[in-house]
Amino acid sequence: MALSPEIIEKINNSFKAQSMMRTMGAELSQLDTGLVTLTSAIPESCKQQHGFGHAALTFGLGDSAAGYAALSVMPVEAEVLTSEMKINLLAPAAGDRIEARGRVVKPGRRLVIVQSDVFAITDDQEVHIAIMTGTMVPIMPK
Amino acid sequence: MALSPEIIEKINNSFKAQSMMRTMGAELSQLDTGLVTLTSAIPESCKQQHGFGHAALTFGLGDSAAGYAALSVMPVEAEVLTSEMKINLLAPAAGDRIEARGRVVKPGRRLVIVQSDVFAITDDQEVHIAIMTGTMVPIMPK
Amino acid sequence: MALSPEIIEKINNSFKAQSMMRTMGAELSQLDTGLVTLTSAIPESCKQQHGFGHAALTFGLGDSAAGYAALSVMPVEAEVLTSEMKINLLAPAAGDRIEARGRVVKPGRRLVIVQSDVFAITDDQEVHIAIMTGTMVPIMPK
Amino acid sequence: MALSPEIIEKINNSFKAQSMMRTMGAELSQLDTGLVTLTSAIPESCKQQHGFGHAALTFGLGDSAAGYAALSVMPVEAEVLTSEMKINLLAPAAGDRIEARGRVVKPGRRLVIVQSDVFAITDDQEVHIAIMTGTMVPIMPK
Repeated sequence: MALSPEIIEKINNSFKAQSMMRTMGAELSQLDTGLVTLTSAIPESCKQQHGFGHAALTFGLGDSAAGYAALSVMPVEAEVLTSEMKINLLAPAAGDRIEARGRVVKPGRRLVIVQSDVFAITDDQEVHIAIMTGTMVPIMPK
Repeated sequence: MALSPEIIEKINNSFKAQSMMRTMGAELSQLDTGLVTLTSAIPESCKQQHGFGHAALTFGLGDSAAGYAALSVMPVEAEVLTSEMKINLLAPAAGDRIEARGRVVKPGRRLVIVQSDVFAITDDQEVHIAIMTGTMVPIMPK
Repeated sequence: MALSPEIIEKINNSFKAQSMMRTMGAELSQLDTGLVTLTSAIPESCKQQHGFGHAALTFGLGDSAAGYAALSVMPVEAEVLTSEMKINLLAPAAGDRIEARGRVVKPGRRLVIVQSDVFAITDDQEVHIAIMTGTMVPIMPK
Repeated sequence: MALSPEIIEKINNSFKAQSMMRTMGAELSQLDTGLVTLTSAIPESCKQQHGFGHAALTFGLGDSAAGYAALSVMPVEAEVLTSEMKINLLAPAAGDRIEARGRVVKPGRRLVIVQSDVFAITDDQEVHIAIMTGTMVPIMPK
């Protein structure tokens, strides 16, 4: 289902307002209803001690992809907060870029359950580096 | 129990080698056996869309504090990897600085179970902003 | 803070209405504001293949202890549902009985964040067998 | 890939040795490499206070399905332990039966990452009631 221009604008504005996303070199590469992908080329400033992408980079991209997936199924006036998120790390964040694909598992008025899968991509090869499951909370204006 | 100079040096070197920690403005403010605290003044570059610290900042500090707590109880030649981590966010990361206190719940040769509590601090007032529980895996040289 | 007689009665009635708790041999052994303990002698019917208590027994006691801890801080007309729960298992459920101590970390109108610690007890010796963190959702009558 | 007769026998024997699974009315309804399904008709003895299946029933089935999925990819002499498991509950366990489908996300010598999806089924209709992600640890004989 195509997203409305208002929702697309809201998500783009929110994304641009997050300095952490800029610092992480993140781009919004897919934006569909309940399905959002973020991509990053793994900046030098976001690495761990062995030169791989830091777990906080993987987490930040996966959390934001899932959060925007949740926002895409909420009313246009809603904001969203992460309430909880679990990440299982499967492999090092090593590659040309990492891609976090967030999706809505169960929408709801009070809670939205989400998942993200994160991949490290080199040329055409994908390695699954993390799975994440969490809870997003819609915040409505008073 | 006091840490050996070798372990202290190993943790300091590892910490300095993580560009993500520099980007997050993190400092190692406590380093004891099974107990490590990281502090950050919440840099402008690590915020979410409402001006609070990003969840990835809270996660990154809590994860690293817990990882170094685990490293502090391992043999000096060991490295450590996060296998999984869950975060429950309790309040916005708003304040003069945030402080992540990681500790070892159960040491082990194969797995080390850890927890972190993260606080936002303004003057002398602390707000508990996140609780984290995870699994660290010791990596021994071959 | 002492619980009101209405809340105590509500929790006792709810507890008795859970056939799973009877099957698990569970007893409500402590009931305070934001703090509830359940105890079980590990029935023969709730074991895993090596004769220890099953992870579902540990989970069930810890989840219910945390749920009743949450219920103890809600209005008397509220019900409670577990939204999510994570368990880290630290040791086998072996001993004379297991004890699950649930507590409220952060109360709230929409979400209540809880933790449980579960212990296996033999004579006077306690072994910490599980840590749990989760989210409870208050359900108000319409 | 077809499972060897030895692995099938090992899993069947382990399953029968778990009194908790009998108490939960569980049956091993699918057993493939990295993919195991357990089914239960929701016994009267495993309910919560509103007459739905208890969260411990959902957890127990999902955890065991995932554990046997992990066991199916390990050497025949290995045992398996759950190290950690997170469950997000999506809907009440109401229906004719519940079905837990466990699968291996990432096999490994030290850790096996698993997921389970749990469904409540009435006639031909499925409702997704829980998603679970966890870590299984292979235990080798000494």
